[in-house]
Amino acid sequence: MKNKIIGIDLGGTTVKFGILTTAGEIQDQWAIATNILDEGAHIVPDIIESIKHRLALYKLATSDFIGIGMGSPGSVNLETGAVTGAYNLNWKTTVEVGKAITEATGLPFFIDNDANVAALGERWMGAGENQPDVIFITLGTGVGGGIIAGGNLIHGVANAGGEIGHIVVVPEDGFDCTCGSKGCLETVASATGIVRVARQLAEEYVGASQLHQAIDSGQLISSKDIFEAAEEGDTFALSVVDKVSFYLGLACGNLGNTLNPDSIVIGGGVSAAGEFLRARVEKYFLQFTFPTVKKTTKIKLATLGNDAGIIGAASLAL
Amino acid sequence: MKNKIIGIDLGGTTVKFGILTTAGEIQDQWAIATNILDEGAHIVPDIIESIKHRLALYKLATSDFIGIGMGSPGSVNLETGAVTGAYNLNWKTTVEVGKAITEATGLPFFIDNDANVAALGERWMGAGENQPDVIFITLGTGVGGGIIAGGNLIHGVANAGGEIGHIVVVPEDGFDCTCGSKGCLETVASATGIVRVARQLAEEYVGASQLHQAIDSGQLISSKDIFEAAEEGDTFALSVVDKVSFYLGLACGNLGNTLNPDSIVIGGGVSAAGEFLRARVEKYFLQFTFPTVKKTTKIKLATLGNDAGIIGAASLAL
Repeated sequence: MKNKIIGIDLGGTTVKFGILTTAGEIQDQWAIATNILDEGAHIVPDIIESIKHRLALYKLATSDFIGIGMGSPGSVNLETGAVTGAYNLNWKTTVEVGKAITEATGLPFFIDNDANVAALGERWMGAGENQPDVIFITLGTGVGGGIIAGGNLIHGVANAGGEIGHIVVVPEDGFDCTCGSKGCLETVASATGIVRVARQLAEEYVGASQLHQAIDSGQLISSKDIFEAAEEGDTFALSVVDKVSFYLGLACGNLGNTLNPDSIVIGGGVSAAGEFLRARVEKYFLQFTFPTVKKTTKIKLATLGNDAGIIGAASLAL
Repeated sequence: MKNKIIGIDLGGTTVKFGILTTAGEIQDQWAIATNILDEGAHIVPDIIESIKHRLALYKLATSDFIGIGMGSPGSVNLETGAVTGAYNLNWKTTVEVGKAITEATGLPFFIDNDANVAALGERWMGAGENQPDVIFITLGTGVGGGIIAGGNLIHGVANAGGEIGHIVVVPEDGFDCTCGSKGCLETVASATGIVRVARQLAEEYVGASQLHQAIDSGQLISSKDIFEAAEEGDTFALSVVDKVSFYLGLACGNLGNTLNPDSIVIGGGVSAAGEFLRARVEKYFLQFTFPTVKKTTKIKLATLGNDAGIIGAASLAL
């Protein structure tokens, strides 16, 4: 009986796999290391091998599955299943991922980019409560996101929809972004962006603060250090968290004013700061939204952690 | 043969009607005055009477039509066809527009808010070139809009999607907005908002400018005066248009970064400034977007003018 799905979360360090029911329940999950040697030529064969091995182990046949879904870095072709520009996989050209996996397994294959797939996961089985309108923001090394509106993932005309990290929140005198613009959300709300904001504010800060002293004495600090210091009441760290929350609240507020989703879900490594961060983002979100959005769009924390990828990937096959 | 649609654009001054083919061609159009006396009790009966009168005049039967679509001010209920809070129609409570029109004509009835319907019109038969991803911004007394993404109008969880006028573009020290927030696009890019920006900039301006003199001597100026002076080379007026274009470019840029539509179409009375305004908005749009969006999302002027409403309304019935 066809009632299972394989979800694959392809990353630069590991490839995560899940066997899920069509109801979104993870029945088995495993991971393999991503072998990026030889221009990433081993990655797709390794994935195929691992799927075959596990299906044999669990005594499952491909006829038990409705399909395979994958989240991938780089630029994905939704129709052909090809991936281009996945530099962290060492893929220098276009790789026909979908074609290879379908040929080897005989199963229908679906793909989308990793941030969109994580958004689908949080929307389906996580904080998004399977609502038709959910926005997901992931705060990590970079800032990414995915937008589900009216029940559909929004791709835009060139598959660049949902690039929430490049919403400009500092229109004047912002930091340079890797994308070529200035003042993008990513420059002030990614893990490195938060440290950048701290260094900027440190120049003007006068007062007692261990964190401030650490920066001035040339110590390397992380966004985690900043949140920990803030939770312990360090005044300077609190001012950094407040500024970052202002930027996040502005971006979330304008997403709310534009799309009025049921929820904006914050995930990624930085969201480990939890309610401490969420409440501050919400404060500014409420400052920047008009009444209907204030009342109906919620700011939430992601709940699935690393599983969002395999769950969202699996949902592509539904 | 059922191959026609009736499109209705309900406004506070006039009700516009169109008889369209399913291909979007306007075959006939007419308008009646909106009679807002007696708490707007005459409006729906007048609409029904006018439709019946015209169908008789044109020797058409209701069996020639697939349905009726309407754009309305206020808050609309997409399922029931009811309208609430349409204060410019003098409607103090909920009015069952859809029920009354369906009962009187026997035709299926579809409704959406006026800005969304204008967006559908520009997308279908206007500058949007019937692409699945189009954003429409109307610059008039207020700033409104509508978002079509993945082929669907985006309503959000409480029907407040597409409120582009309430995107915050001045996060600090912005003007008060009627919505309760500060710094909304509407406060700096509506007809009155543009004048407000001019008055603010006038306080700091030093130089020769007829427009500046007019403001300082207490003359009433309009946004049209500002654009005309700018086109004639008035330095102060050019600085006002530049500032307004900066705000519009920022809002359009972030809409592009978020949704990557095929085009963002600018309409409404202020857009009469034409290419003079569009080119300046585009300049800032290109400053605030990342490469894929720069390359694939276009800034366009609306082409349908006042007909966008009846055309978009008709498209609801398709």
